[in-house]
Amino acid sequence: MSQTVTDFEVHDIRFPTSEQLDGSDAMNPDPDYSAAYVVLRTDGADGDGGGIEGHGFCFTIGRGNEVMAAAIEALRPYLTGRPVPRTAADLGELYRDLTHDSQLRWLGPEKGVMHMAAGAVLNAAWDLAAKHAGRPVWQFLAGMTPEELVSLVDFRYLTDALTPEEALAILRAAEPGRAERAERLRAEGYPAYTTSPGWLGYSDDKLVRLAKEAVADGFTQIKLKVGGDVADDVRRLALARDAVGTGVRIAVDANQRWDVADAVEWMTALAPYDPHWIEEPTSPDDILGHAAVRAGQPVKVATGEHVANRVVFKQLLQAGAVDFVQIDAARVAGVNENLAILLLAAKFGVPVCPHAGGVGLCELVQHLSMFDYVAVSGTWEDRVIEYVDHLHEHFVDPTVIESGRYTAPAAPGFSARMHPESIAAHRYPEGPVWQARRTNEEDSR
Amino acid sequence: MSQTVTDFEVHDIRFPTSEQLDGSDAMNPDPDYSAAYVVLRTDGADGDGGGIEGHGFCFTIGRGNEVMAAAIEALRPYLTGRPVPRTAADLGELYRDLTHDSQLRWLGPEKGVMHMAAGAVLNAAWDLAAKHAGRPVWQFLAGMTPEELVSLVDFRYLTDALTPEEALAILRAAEPGRAERAERLRAEGYPAYTTSPGWLGYSDDKLVRLAKEAVADGFTQIKLKVGGDVADDVRRLALARDAVGTGVRIAVDANQRWDVADAVEWMTALAPYDPHWIEEPTSPDDILGHAAVRAGQPVKVATGEHVANRVVFKQLLQAGAVDFVQIDAARVAGVNENLAILLLAAKFGVPVCPHAGGVGLCELVQHLSMFDYVAVSGTWEDRVIEYVDHLHEHFVDPTVIESGRYTAPAAPGFSARMHPESIAAHRYPEGPVWQARRTNEEDSR
Repeated sequence: MSQTVTDFEVHDIRFPTSEQLDGSDAMNPDPDYSAAYVVLRTDGADGDGGGIEGHGFCFTIGRGNEVMAAAIEALRPYLTGRPVPRTAADLGELYRDLTHDSQLRWLGPEKGVMHMAAGAVLNAAWDLAAKHAGRPVWQFLAGMTPEELVSLVDFRYLTDALTPEEALAILRAAEPGRAERAERLRAEGYPAYTTSPGWLGYSDDKLVRLAKEAVADGFTQIKLKVGGDVADDVRRLALARDAVGTGVRIAVDANQRWDVADAVEWMTALAPYDPHWIEEPTSPDDILGHAAVRAGQPVKVATGEHVANRVVFKQLLQAGAVDFVQIDAARVAGVNENLAILLLAAKFGVPVCPHAGGVGLCELVQHLSMFDYVAVSGTWEDRVIEYVDHLHEHFVDPTVIESGRYTAPAAPGFSARMHPESIAAHRYPEGPVWQARRTNEEDSR
Repeated sequence: MSQTVTDFEVHDIRFPTSEQLDGSDAMNPDPDYSAAYVVLRTDGADGDGGGIEGHGFCFTIGRGNEVMAAAIEALRPYLTGRPVPRTAADLGELYRDLTHDSQLRWLGPEKGVMHMAAGAVLNAAWDLAAKHAGRPVWQFLAGMTPEELVSLVDFRYLTDALTPEEALAILRAAEPGRAERAERLRAEGYPAYTTSPGWLGYSDDKLVRLAKEAVADGFTQIKLKVGGDVADDVRRLALARDAVGTGVRIAVDANQRWDVADAVEWMTALAPYDPHWIEEPTSPDDILGHAAVRAGQPVKVATGEHVANRVVFKQLLQAGAVDFVQIDAARVAGVNENLAILLLAAKFGVPVCPHAGGVGLCELVQHLSMFDYVAVSGTWEDRVIEYVDHLHEHFVDPTVIESGRYTAPAAPGFSARMHPESIAAHRYPEGPVWQARRTNEEDSR
């Protein structure tokens, strides 16, 4: 009767989003939002009588999604045959198995394709474990003791900034009030902001219309993409400021477009319109560059969606390079590494404002911020989760936004499961959506 | 009659080196040295009447080599059908094509599997271009004008430390004397050091015997792996020091084993035996950590074989974190990105001592140090290329070491070509070497 992981399915799923210029920015002109998706099948029964499953994925923007799928496939031996109770009870062990494989580690270490693949598989295991426990991931995490949570973290390379003892102290300090905060979260939801008005490919009219709609929908922060042309950005930011008024925050996002001097010059030009933060002004690897941008102009600095791992986040904090830490649920090694990053941010007193959007990133990352509120930082002051209204219809338990806030998920798991029909339709290259697109392209030649 | 790249072959090649513990260190106990190997075939004639070819590869240590091969495969569209003369004449254009593909860039950016794949393909194009010109790569590079060399570099994210104008000034300052240095290089070879005595899996007797042999062979520097156990390391370093005397340098290499405080404590214990440098004391991503290790103990600090890209090297230099820059020919985006790193090191006055070994890394990287000597830094003072006597027999134009120095390659190209028989024998999983191993494993059950 011991339950085990019996199968490990990998899917290359792509959505032809480049047709609408949704998601267009200064560095990513034509993304096809994609997921390298993994399903852990088991012989353990769930409520429907089928086997309980774990779903996870990496987000990519099109080409190369097959490389991610190959990297996930390389992790198959660690999962197939693994007992479900052991997996659910010791996700720290699985994390170490996946990231300490010495041969696979050479391909990073702990960065890029191989590390994101470890994250996808780990997140699938978290989905499985939370379903096994009958709880949404945020609540599953928030029900653990400080000692259990600390055992999930890999402190290698962190101890000059955060020791296990310090992490334990942070978590213990947040123990009183966990129940009250969980209750408040269920009642009020978690603050969100929206990027939907601000894609670089949108016209001024569409920008203004969507900005006003966002405020009408209850959002108190929006975000614009910048970095194409400084005069365009000044005009667009002025239009947006005029549309939303002074009471609504407008963040701007350069998607790594600049060198340090460019960032300082550009943001000095945009500063009169009071941008809330400048996001990804330069390379995500450039810790000292971010520190120089922060020191060189008046706007607060945010980064993280492309930061490779906890070691780089540690240094961004040590160097005083960022005002906001932007975790991403699917770039680092899953819940475990994001737990380390939440603890680092708490240690340094820097708010965490997650990156989301893409495919399913909102669904995943909401759990991490909600857990942070209940059991780590204990506050949502100055914290917001990004929201983008793309592709949620493909998920079985999609994000729910009410009055500009994320509603706390109630269903067991990580909200990661896509509808089987969505998977079937968008498999690349053989799914019907892509077959039809190829037929159209051939017809138009 | 225009020559083009007609085919793009990708091979997963693995050598079962884990059987001997060659290459064993504190983080990599059982590597199977491997290459994800690419061949650019063309319809341009070479001297033998066949089509001129470009060969390149990434080095891995076994599992995951198939993921690297998939990443190389993703770059196929940029090469097939590409004219050879255009490729040879503008390797800066190819570099930008491979690393600026916005969808593929998402998988890094500029790090890990996808970035190493770009490096393999770029290096294959450099092999092709140098053969097209009838010169070894070091000489092909050293024959370019400063302006041509600067056009090969991507200065994005570098300009706060190195501008194109500064790079030009460095290269112009080294123009006088190029011919004399090339002549001296051909006559004397380039200084090398050897890691062959020092693998962690070797017995004390083997260590002492190989250390003495290295000195007898003319090497003036050897290297030991450390980081398993401090008492063992003190004993091994003392034995090695006793074996080679005080006139020979002994570097030590921790392969990322430590946190900052561990590194400081461990190296303080080893310092009495006068190690020349401590290599990879901690995470290759930890710029501030390296700076703290350098400040906290007396031994000089070296790193680079796992440094992901030019942006991280820039910061290691800006932060004063390293005494030696250890480039690797096959981890960053090929010759182009290594040219940027050589220029950064020259700007900061830090010697470059390349990482080599593995499969074919000696063959490749010798060209970069020799070019640096002739046309960038203009000196080999305090500079040595690593040498490991593994697997050279598989290369058509293998590294030649004489009296502890690399002999300047004379054959056109990048010395990257493996013997067809070696490729056929070691293809994974279908090559006869691996089939035989599986048969042996089945027999021994």
